[in-house]
Amino acid sequence: MTKVAFIGAGRIGQTIIYSTLLSGAIDKAIVFDIVPDLPQRFKDELMHALASAKINTKILATNSIDEVKDADIVLISAGKPRQANQNRTDVFNDNAKIMIEFAKTLPRNNPKALFIIVTNPVDQMASVFMKYSNRFTISSGAQVENMRLRSFIAERLGVPVDVVDGFAGGEHGEGLSIFWDTVTINNVPFDEAAKGKLTRDEVTNYVKDVAAQVIAVLGGTSWGPATSMRDIIVAVAANENRVMSIAAPIKYKDETLHVSRPTIVGNKIGPSLEKSLSEEDLRLLNAAVDKMYNEYKELTKNLK
Amino acid sequence: MTKVAFIGAGRIGQTIIYSTLLSGAIDKAIVFDIVPDLPQRFKDELMHALASAKINTKILATNSIDEVKDADIVLISAGKPRQANQNRTDVFNDNAKIMIEFAKTLPRNNPKALFIIVTNPVDQMASVFMKYSNRFTISSGAQVENMRLRSFIAERLGVPVDVVDGFAGGEHGEGLSIFWDTVTINNVPFDEAAKGKLTRDEVTNYVKDVAAQVIAVLGGTSWGPATSMRDIIVAVAANENRVMSIAAPIKYKDETLHVSRPTIVGNKIGPSLEKSLSEEDLRLLNAAVDKMYNEYKELTKNLK
Amino acid sequence: MTKVAFIGAGRIGQTIIYSTLLSGAIDKAIVFDIVPDLPQRFKDELMHALASAKINTKILATNSIDEVKDADIVLISAGKPRQANQNRTDVFNDNAKIMIEFAKTLPRNNPKALFIIVTNPVDQMASVFMKYSNRFTISSGAQVENMRLRSFIAERLGVPVDVVDGFAGGEHGEGLSIFWDTVTINNVPFDEAAKGKLTRDEVTNYVKDVAAQVIAVLGGTSWGPATSMRDIIVAVAANENRVMSIAAPIKYKDETLHVSRPTIVGNKIGPSLEKSLSEEDLRLLNAAVDKMYNEYKELTKNLK
Amino acid sequence: MTKVAFIGAGRIGQTIIYSTLLSGAIDKAIVFDIVPDLPQRFKDELMHALASAKINTKILATNSIDEVKDADIVLISAGKPRQANQNRTDVFNDNAKIMIEFAKTLPRNNPKALFIIVTNPVDQMASVFMKYSNRFTISSGAQVENMRLRSFIAERLGVPVDVVDGFAGGEHGEGLSIFWDTVTINNVPFDEAAKGKLTRDEVTNYVKDVAAQVIAVLGGTSWGPATSMRDIIVAVAANENRVMSIAAPIKYKDETLHVSRPTIVGNKIGPSLEKSLSEEDLRLLNAAVDKMYNEYKELTKNLK
Repeated sequence: MTKVAFIGAGRIGQTIIYSTLLSGAIDKAIVFDIVPDLPQRFKDELMHALASAKINTKILATNSIDEVKDADIVLISAGKPRQANQNRTDVFNDNAKIMIEFAKTLPRNNPKALFIIVTNPVDQMASVFMKYSNRFTISSGAQVENMRLRSFIAERLGVPVDVVDGFAGGEHGEGLSIFWDTVTINNVPFDEAAKGKLTRDEVTNYVKDVAAQVIAVLGGTSWGPATSMRDIIVAVAANENRVMSIAAPIKYKDETLHVSRPTIVGNKIGPSLEKSLSEEDLRLLNAAVDKMYNEYKELTKNLK
Repeated sequence: MTKVAFIGAGRIGQTIIYSTLLSGAIDKAIVFDIVPDLPQRFKDELMHALASAKINTKILATNSIDEVKDADIVLISAGKPRQANQNRTDVFNDNAKIMIEFAKTLPRNNPKALFIIVTNPVDQMASVFMKYSNRFTISSGAQVENMRLRSFIAERLGVPVDVVDGFAGGEHGEGLSIFWDTVTINNVPFDEAAKGKLTRDEVTNYVKDVAAQVIAVLGGTSWGPATSMRDIIVAVAANENRVMSIAAPIKYKDETLHVSRPTIVGNKIGPSLEKSLSEEDLRLLNAAVDKMYNEYKELTKNLK
Repeated sequence: MTKVAFIGAGRIGQTIIYSTLLSGAIDKAIVFDIVPDLPQRFKDELMHALASAKINTKILATNSIDEVKDADIVLISAGKPRQANQNRTDVFNDNAKIMIEFAKTLPRNNPKALFIIVTNPVDQMASVFMKYSNRFTISSGAQVENMRLRSFIAERLGVPVDVVDGFAGGEHGEGLSIFWDTVTINNVPFDEAAKGKLTRDEVTNYVKDVAAQVIAVLGGTSWGPATSMRDIIVAVAANENRVMSIAAPIKYKDETLHVSRPTIVGNKIGPSLEKSLSEEDLRLLNAAVDKMYNEYKELTKNLK
Repeated sequence: MTKVAFIGAGRIGQTIIYSTLLSGAIDKAIVFDIVPDLPQRFKDELMHALASAKINTKILATNSIDEVKDADIVLISAGKPRQANQNRTDVFNDNAKIMIEFAKTLPRNNPKALFIIVTNPVDQMASVFMKYSNRFTISSGAQVENMRLRSFIAERLGVPVDVVDGFAGGEHGEGLSIFWDTVTINNVPFDEAAKGKLTRDEVTNYVKDVAAQVIAVLGGTSWGPATSMRDIIVAVAANENRVMSIAAPIKYKDETLHVSRPTIVGNKIGPSLEKSLSEEDLRLLNAAVDKMYNEYKELTKNLK
């Protein structure tokens, strides 16, 4: 009986919406975008897709933010997409303004919604949204990096991807940390399983560089992140209680920050598995928190 | 144990490949495109998506047609996409050359493959491919129009899409026929169920116009057709024996044509349900066959 | 939005209900049985199962036939199960009385329902139910035999089961016909694919004998038939338009009979693919119809 | 690529095997039982079911424990089922002997397998198996009680089951603890959400009594536990990293015990969420550990 509102139907937004609706896990969807006719024509495409898949999800397509009501989950992908020559901070200013606008309008009509931010830079955008809305907000965080981590190891070691486990966290993007003590292949620690075949550096380089490489050729990432985001929505909608490396809010000094940690995702968000991380992994996480705090203070000092 | 080769990884190709792999129905995929790095970087995205979905499909990404081998199904989407100001025949000449090229190269290394053409104009492209390859070939035909037909009726009558049944056929696109005597809502014939709410003309207009409307806003159709094409692939791969309005080859006069009829799709293609159509629907189908024959003769007279 | 009423929650009934609900394809279920507390305690078990599967289907458990209302599909499995030493006709008399009773009570409160009979002997029970209810009725017919046919061929030839196609039909049980011209392995006709490895007689013996062998060891068949029946329900509920060898009503002489033929199963039942059968297969079918007519006349001559 | 060996194909074993295979999540299954012909005839039924579901899982049916080889997961359900008039301890002695026998034979040929014990009393049987095999072993623990807990609350409060969260733990069966501070309905704590509608005592009574009530009418529980067990297997096979209240081994005094706690289940088992439990819930858990230790010592003092 889950109703999900999708704010933004651009390249990544469309892919998330399509993928989520095709999963069959949600009953009602609201598709909002400011571009006239875009939600309506995209709805046509979705209706044709759902007809083929025999799925009965109801869709409301709208250009009016006032029609975004009574959602269980509000996922915000609206914003300026990251370009090949941009770092995440370049897009901060443009998108923070968009978040603040939505933070003022969306909560009133969606009193019970969980807010999920996937607009980049995802963690800072979630913190901005939460600050200006006073509503519980998460970001998709490093969940897509988890999948990049696991799929690369699987590919290089020649094993099925579902025997590779492990979590990345900290900052989504360039400042990412890999929690190496969580990484196993068939329960064997990475260093032992990968010995002579694959190094930590090769994995780190792939996980940090692959987005830029994809953007250079395809013009943007979409299929990978969108599927991670679909699976976050489905985990909430079906109360899967699955561990994902999303960014849930934490208090740090005088701010509420979003920093990715392995976290239980279900109808409730949390607890995180921070207490189960190794000392070394926890050190990485704590360093990321401090670094992100400083960056966030710097980025937001002129926000009003 | 199904291995599917996807020839072309453009907008529609990517969407088909993503959707098909996410279904979990195939074991091995080959992604071919002539653009350097495109299949490889798209494979990265797919790997990240499959990791999230816990699906172990193996992917070979290649720019070399010689690596496209031993597929059970070869789906060809390569070609020039239809633009807003084009009709289907405008793209015939460009794409026919591409089909002929593939017809000469692909069959040798894929001796047991079923060939599925989704490059537009789909029906003529399938006929061209079959003529130059001497291999059994189908096109996705009017299957996406079936879904447009059903979803529009469901939306307008306020019923779940899976209680709407019915088939379109003949020519994919402007010359489409709706087989009205097959159209029912909860087993009630269309005219009775829709009385006072929706006319045949409104439905026909929607089914014929919606693609152009979507193209005008989104730059192309992708989600709707891609899902129909995914479901054709899955029906073959899992031997679903499902009725779909695809275009399987028929002999007509001196040509092998591809004209859409409700057809059983499984590990085998056919039989069609032509013999069960009403007299009126059969008349529409036969008229379409004749019209398509003449068009095809006209279009192909300069092909060599 | 499909509501399914299950009449009977014995061994086979429970397995069908469990399997169908776990598919997630239906929204509401009614579980009826005459045994006090049985539907209620079975509902407890189902609720625990659905909680694990994260499926929200609502269940009404009842001993009162008056509470069986407004179903889209009514599946009747109530009756005396076949014992190891019984043939199908032995159970005819007991179960016909049960069918007649339900035929008088169920239609009034379920005015739009499709009736599916799986009580043995299934085909005759469907004809009896239809005669006394004047409602459109099908039986599961030879669909389970199709699956026995295909799985045995796959096992013996060492191929995946989904590359084996083919249909059995006529009479469910001892008088079964295999429509050999429909049987293919990877599109290769049976006789060619099986040459030197497997004979028609071996297949026929397996398909006809396996139920008795299973009954002798397990006390009854359940998992195989229940899954076939689940898939019939799902095909109707999701309008799959899938070919299955169910028994839909045909007029023959002065009776309405149920004889299995490959038939399109969706929101609508039919058409059958009888017109596409080979001459030889059609001969088998027609012989079965005549034989079943005579048996049915004999069996029913004392029914009132 | 997961291969699962199922040891025992009785009532509960069959239901687990059927349900797991129908999920499509495993590639190879071994079905072992000591009863002659039972695995073989049950395999026939499974093959028919998988054919209908279009699933290609390979099955080895055997009466020889030596053929149980190279499994990724070994699930043991063999043993004497609990009768209506038995408590869990009554069946300890019979089943402990069976566990010891398997502990001596199964590990050698299954060097990488995760062992899952579902034979009752599940927790003690897992401890016995682990002691005599020196292999990592879990039991299904209180996972089925989680589902009983959630489904009863959902039913009584009239909400979908997937908005109810919460964990039971400690001892499977009579000594069960409900970790009330984990129980929420749409993120609202139980006491607040249930106020005036449902009490903790009603829930506790249901969760502790329902098995006996089901056994009294149906002769045994099967559908509920089997689905929980299927989902444990699937969580491992697909590396879902899902929180389940299974019993993983803990060291306590001089023994390795199995006591249920919310635990991450994936390709790896753990960590548990013990550190995130409230003080009150942790107190319940610790009391259960101590009680189970004493019981286990008492029960095993004569084992050799």
